[in-house]
Order: sequence, then C-alpha cells, then structure tokens
Amino acid sequence: MPVDANAEIEITGFAWVPDFARGFVRDLRPRWACEEAGIGYRERLINFETAKGEAYRREQPFGQVPAYRDNEVQMFESGAMVLRIAERSETLMPRDAAGRARILTWVTAALNSVEPFVFDLVAIDTFNKEAEWAKLRRPEVIESLRGRLGSLANWLGGKDYLEGDFSAADIIMATVLREVSDEALMAEFPTLTAYRERCVSRPAFQRAMDAQLSSLAAEPAMA
Amino acid sequence: MPVDANAEIEITGFAWVPDFARGFVRDLRPRWACEEAGIGYRERLINFETAKGEAYRREQPFGQVPAYRDNEVQMFESGAMVLRIAERSETLMPRDAAGRARILTWVTAALNSVEPFVFDLVAIDTFNKEAEWAKLRRPEVIESLRGRLGSLANWLGGKDYLEGDFSAADIIMATVLREVSDEALMAEFPTLTAYRERCVSRPAFQRAMDAQLSSLAAEPAMA
Ligand SMILES: N[C@@H](CCC(=O)N[C@@H](CS)C(=O)NCC(=O)O)C(=O)O
Ligand SMILES: N[C@@H](CCC(=O)N[C@@H](CS)C(=O)NCC(=O)O)C(=O)O
Repeated sequence: MPVDANAEIEITGFAWVPDFARGFVRDLRPRWACEEAGIGYRERLINFETAKGEAYRREQPFGQVPAYRDNEVQMFESGAMVLRIAERSETLMPRDAAGRARILTWVTAALNSVEPFVFDLVAIDTFNKEAEWAKLRRPEVIESLRGRLGSLANWLGGKDYLEGDFSAADIIMATVLREVSDEALMAEFPTLTAYRERCVSRPAFQRAMDAQLSSLAAEPAMA
Repeated sequence: MPVDANAEIEITGFAWVPDFARGFVRDLRPRWACEEAGIGYRERLINFETAKGEAYRREQPFGQVPAYRDNEVQMFESGAMVLRIAERSETLMPRDAAGRARILTWVTAALNSVEPFVFDLVAIDTFNKEAEWAKLRRPEVIESLRGRLGSLANWLGGKDYLEGDFSAADIIMATVLREVSDEALMAEFPTLTAYRERCVSRPAFQRAMDAQLSSLAAEPAMA
C-alpha cells in the first residue's frame, strides 16, 4: 500500500522515459493523490509504441499517460483522476458542495490558467532552446508567466494552501509550479517557492516520487 | 429565463470587448450551460479597470471573466462553472458516478490537452501576426494542433457527441474548437467541423450567443 498489485485502482505510466522527464511524468499526480488518501493502486507500465497504438487510444485518445481505471470507471487526464480520487477520501477535498466547488475551481485554474503559460516556457527551454523563434519569443513568454505567477502569489498571500487545508488543488498547482523551467523567475515570488516546497516536502509526495522513479527502467525496452 | 435579474446564479462578464472577442468571451460557456439546463442567471457586467482591481481579484485572482456565484458558492474558471451547473441538471451530465467521471475527463481534456494548443495558434494569428518569431514558429504550432485534432476526430469517429448524449464536455470542447483560427486546418477534419456545427446549432447555444452579444455595449465606458 499504496503500490499494491491487487489494488482496485490501476494507474498506467511509462516503462521508460528520457532523463529530463523522470520525476515529471504526470502519473505523479494520481500517485500523489492515492498516497495522500491512503488508497492503494496498481501500476501498469507501457512503452511509447503501445501508447500510440489503436487499442490504447480507446483508453487515452491522445496516446499519452497517465490512464486510470477502478472498478467503476476508466478515465484519462491527470487532473480529472486527482478529482476522482479526492471524491473517495476526506483528506483531499471537503465534503460540502461549496468546498468541493472551490477545489474544482482551483484544479481548473491550475490546468487552464497557469499550466498553458508554463507549457509555453517549457516548449522553449526544453524543446527549442537553440531555435531562432524561441530566442525572439522568450521575453514575452516570461512576461506572461510572470503575470500569472504574480496573481497566484497575490492570492496565496499568507495562506499555506490554495483553499484551507491541503487539497487536490494543491497537488495540481504544485506539480504545475515544478514544471517552471526558470528558477530565477520563480525566485521573484518567495510566496510561491515556499508554497511549492511546503507541498513537495509532504511525505506522500516523496513516496509518489519514489514510486515513479523506481517504476522507470534504466533502458527503453521493445514491445 | 435564463437571463433574469432575480435569478440565484450570477455570471460576471465584460460590459465591452473589442470586436474580435465578441461571441468568444468565455462567459459564453456558463451561459450556454444555463440555457441547456433551463436554469436562470443574472448578469453582472464589469469593465477592464474593475477586472484588474484588488476587490474583483478576490473573486477572480487573474482579473478575468467570467466569475460566478450562486447561493452556495463563489467560483471562477468557465470549465469549473459548467461542471457546477451540470451537477444541478440531468441534461448536461449523467447521474451515475461512472458517467460523471467520463464527463469530467473530457472537460479536462478540452481544457488541458486541446485548448493550450489552440492558445498557441491564437497567440500567433490574433496577437502576433507580423512578428518574426510567429512566422518561424507557426508551422510547428499547426503541426502540434493537427495532431491533437486528429486524435480527437479519431475518438469521435461516427459518434454525435464525446460521450453518449450532449453534455457539459461538448460545451467546453465545441467552444475550444470555435477558437481555432485556421479554418483550412479545421477543414482537414470533417468529423470535427460537423461535430462543432452540431453543437453550435443547438438553440441553447444560439440563445447564449445572443445574450452575450446583446450584453456588450457598442463603446467602452469608464468606471
Ligand atoms: N493533459 C494530460 C497530459 C498528459 C501528458 O502530457 N503526458 C505525457 C507525459 S507527462 C506523455 O504521455 N507524453 C508522451 C507523448 O505525448 O507522446 C494529463 O494531464 O494527463
Ligand atoms: N481559464 C479562464 C480563462 C478566462 C479568460 O481568458 N478570460 C478572458 C476573456 S475570454 C479575459 O478576461 N481576458 C481579459 C484579460 O485577460 O485581461 C476561464 O476559462 O475562465
């Protein structure tokens, strides 16, 4: 527990990824949610060829990981999975409708109002560092992301977490902030670096991270 | 009904936007959901100065529209609002847990796996058309978006909607597809243009659109 071959929940991840992706593959999110909630899950590890095949695309139409199933449902999208797992636990989301709506709001904000700006920076720093367009564009991408981070820091102010206690929303937001590829930019917002550190220093995060890292093979395998 | 000054639900939009944004402001999403569900809502219209002020940022931390409130909760994020409205109606989401999880999955996919790629194209076509970086980058952005649209078309196949009957997921996905700024690219996927047309030709969409357009003043006003 939580990684348990007989568990009801199954989380699909990759059997191998390149070094830069280790510790950042998005199955980290549902793993972390399970660890916080104390709910077991089993791993299914696939390779890139399987991920892009017709059969797997009926589970994950974009040919990506993670995918998820439990006795009731088959899902994709790490954000949706974390909300699903949160509904099965008292620790990741309040029980009342008003509290649940706030967590839903912040999960959505992390995914649709913050992460797209982080993607833009990652597209430059990780995948196109030497491209001419990337050099021309980077200052504007930084400026837009800075605006988002500033708004988020402003919201957090002296709060420990986005909404009251630690929740599903913090799992998504903290993992989004981990993706920011410019630490100097992050350092402009001590509120955010402290928040991110508060989240990732939770034992459940550490266990999820260890579980992802130990699931990844050293070398890519065929089939 | 649905636009009704005494309704419980309040949706905040802009009092004025430039021409290119008319019919595309994201309060269209919760308006559409209310129209489908036959639930009334009242409008609150604000200007850009109010949107960027401290008071409004306690409602919408990024200083954007829409914002939402009902007797129980205050929310932001159009995607989250549509899910909230869907929970109050039988018409936008199945009642069973398994069905709800599928709708949640597809709302999240639209927001986190499709819309970010559309944003990248809009950043070029709407906001940076003449920029040198944009000309260099555009073919790759088209290629990535083409991949996402192809996966989505493949999922849809002969289905009318993403999951069984029309749902909250189709509200989000159809509005995301409306944002694609290259109609020649869309035309490569007749499945998607037919799907989008099927969604936006619903009378509830048309009423939501009319409501947004008639709420927008011809000229920007101060305060
Ligand atoms: N929005 C999706 C994104 C999934 C995603 O980006 N998965 C990556 C790993 S972190 C992947 O499978 N990449 C391989 C590929 O795209 O081919 C989610 O949150 O689940
Ligand atoms: N992720 C947000 C995006 C909201 C958004 O982009 N709102 C735009 C109008 S469609 C806005 O307020 N723009 C003005 C600005 O950013 O200053 C949502 O879906 O609610």
